[in-house]
Amino acid sequence: MSAPALALRGMGSFHAGGRTVLRSGGPVREVVFTPGSAPARLDPNGVVHVGQMYVQFMLPAVRLGAAPLVFWHGGGMTGATWETTPDGREGWAQWFLRRGWDVHVCDAAERGRSGFPPPGVLPDEPVFQTVAAPFERFRIGEGPGSWHADPARRRVLPGCRFPVAAYDEFVRQMVPRWIGSDETIIAAHIAALERIGPSVLLCHSQGGAFAFRVAGRRPDLVRAIVAVEPAALPPPAEAAGLAAIPVLLVYGDFIAVDPRWRALRAEAGASAAAISHAGGDITLLDLPAEGIAGNSHLLMMDDNSDEIAALIQGWLAARALVREG
Amino acid sequence: MSAPALALRGMGSFHAGGRTVLRSGGPVREVVFTPGSAPARLDPNGVVHVGQMYVQFMLPAVRLGAAPLVFWHGGGMTGATWETTPDGREGWAQWFLRRGWDVHVCDAAERGRSGFPPPGVLPDEPVFQTVAAPFERFRIGEGPGSWHADPARRRVLPGCRFPVAAYDEFVRQMVPRWIGSDETIIAAHIAALERIGPSVLLCHSQGGAFAFRVAGRRPDLVRAIVAVEPAALPPPAEAAGLAAIPVLLVYGDFIAVDPRWRALRAEAGASAAAISHAGGDITLLDLPAEGIAGNSHLLMMDDNSDEIAALIQGWLAARALVREG
Repeated sequence: MSAPALALRGMGSFHAGGRTVLRSGGPVREVVFTPGSAPARLDPNGVVHVGQMYVQFMLPAVRLGAAPLVFWHGGGMTGATWETTPDGREGWAQWFLRRGWDVHVCDAAERGRSGFPPPGVLPDEPVFQTVAAPFERFRIGEGPGSWHADPARRRVLPGCRFPVAAYDEFVRQMVPRWIGSDETIIAAHIAALERIGPSVLLCHSQGGAFAFRVAGRRPDLVRAIVAVEPAALPPPAEAAGLAAIPVLLVYGDFIAVDPRWRALRAEAGASAAAISHAGGDITLLDLPAEGIAGNSHLLMMDDNSDEIAALIQGWLAARALVREG
Repeated sequence: MSAPALALRGMGSFHAGGRTVLRSGGPVREVVFTPGSAPARLDPNGVVHVGQMYVQFMLPAVRLGAAPLVFWHGGGMTGATWETTPDGREGWAQWFLRRGWDVHVCDAAERGRSGFPPPGVLPDEPVFQTVAAPFERFRIGEGPGSWHADPARRRVLPGCRFPVAAYDEFVRQMVPRWIGSDETIIAAHIAALERIGPSVLLCHSQGGAFAFRVAGRRPDLVRAIVAVEPAALPPPAEAAGLAAIPVLLVYGDFIAVDPRWRALRAEAGASAAAISHAGGDITLLDLPAEGIAGNSHLLMMDDNSDEIAALIQGWLAARALVREG
């Protein structure tokens, strides 16, 4: 807590979007919610609200960002992604807030403080990630089989900058997620942007895929996209739709050793070339090519997260999205 | 946003507590998490982390609270309870932060950013509240049948101070909750307090019931309890265990017209008398008896929420828990 004080002109939250569905045919029960408390009649039937999204905002006293900055986390995560890093440093939410951005941290619909819908509303069951999965899939460990319950026996990629000693802090941040909830999430993202106004989207992984799809539908709501290892880019045939929105793609290290990330990265390169060919302003920041080695998929938690934030801030400033302090 | 700037010395979050469970026997599938993205192998089997709790902290530049202030929400809610009110005013998290308290806002285990466990870990299924339920059970409407999809046809208790025009904002804050998760939640609450240190607990409804149970087990971690319409108090036979911890109980209006609340309130009165008889410092603040009429169960969202916060602050100051500014 040795950082200088943070002056805010306000903070708070709201929920955006969603819809109501009618449930019927469920059994009515008498339940005791709290031991020792009076029983209550629990009728599951009736109108239920689903699909809304939680947005927390923190507004600096002196605003230097030319637009709101909206954070969208990746799959299986919540807005906690952008807060304190697993090893206890300030995260990107605070980093950009300290530089005068109006920060809006979202939990995708069906995750975190957005809540999740009753069975039958989404097409699948929730997916629960194992503790091993991010270690092995997010380029922290050396791929399948590299995680072990004993931290001393985990095989970490050489030079990996994820704070591996705090990995067990990170796994507590994971939440269940659904497959097949994309339209629900995108609709709520658009509802939130309609309320926030045209914004810079700073997105990770699955959140990056949503950013491009939201921008394709509502380019009026998107001032720029910073996509940190997005799970998908628009196919090259749709690249022209992004020509008016500046895009920064950021990639970490070890991609060549992971077949899935190699495929994603190759597709991103093709899409970026098509966007550029269509006249778009797209930058592909390949960190190892810039001499910055060792970053995992969780760049915003890696031990050089501040350095990467500064590169993003520089790119935004070069596009006149940062006012003079 | 006309309030004066809020100076923070830090903000962030962490997850506390929980445990790992081993899942086995589930089918391995190839899934496409994001349309257009490369497929991934999804193996649900292995070690999963469950039962952790999310804690977000906001620390004022000038600290005047003599202990951390920890907010525990009620059933079916998250920490969003304490943020912006449904009608857009600053909530109690900001109110107490502005008065120099180190504020810690928690999401109970299995809710919000704490995530929830796979099927089979908790003894029941998640419970989904209807839009009507809080309206009819939290003393906003005139009991069963008073909610209607058409806001103009909702029957509101005369003089109710809940911002009924913003009720549909409030319902978006609701999240599923479990029955039978008490031990999981209490364990995580204790783990969080071990990290935060001895704290003043400001709790609502179900959160109030947890506060008393945590205080009974770990009185060393609890400096005071402010329980806003707690769902349960300790039975009179256990009252002596609370004798060393100052307790403030706060109750709103319309309790006489609701049989469940009448029962809860009567039990609370008996417990409070027993705690007082055992030498405890317990105050029962009955708002209508003080001339403050119209409060619902959601006191922290009612239109006089600031007035009630000030009464709580006064009670804390009288117990030397507020330093001179």
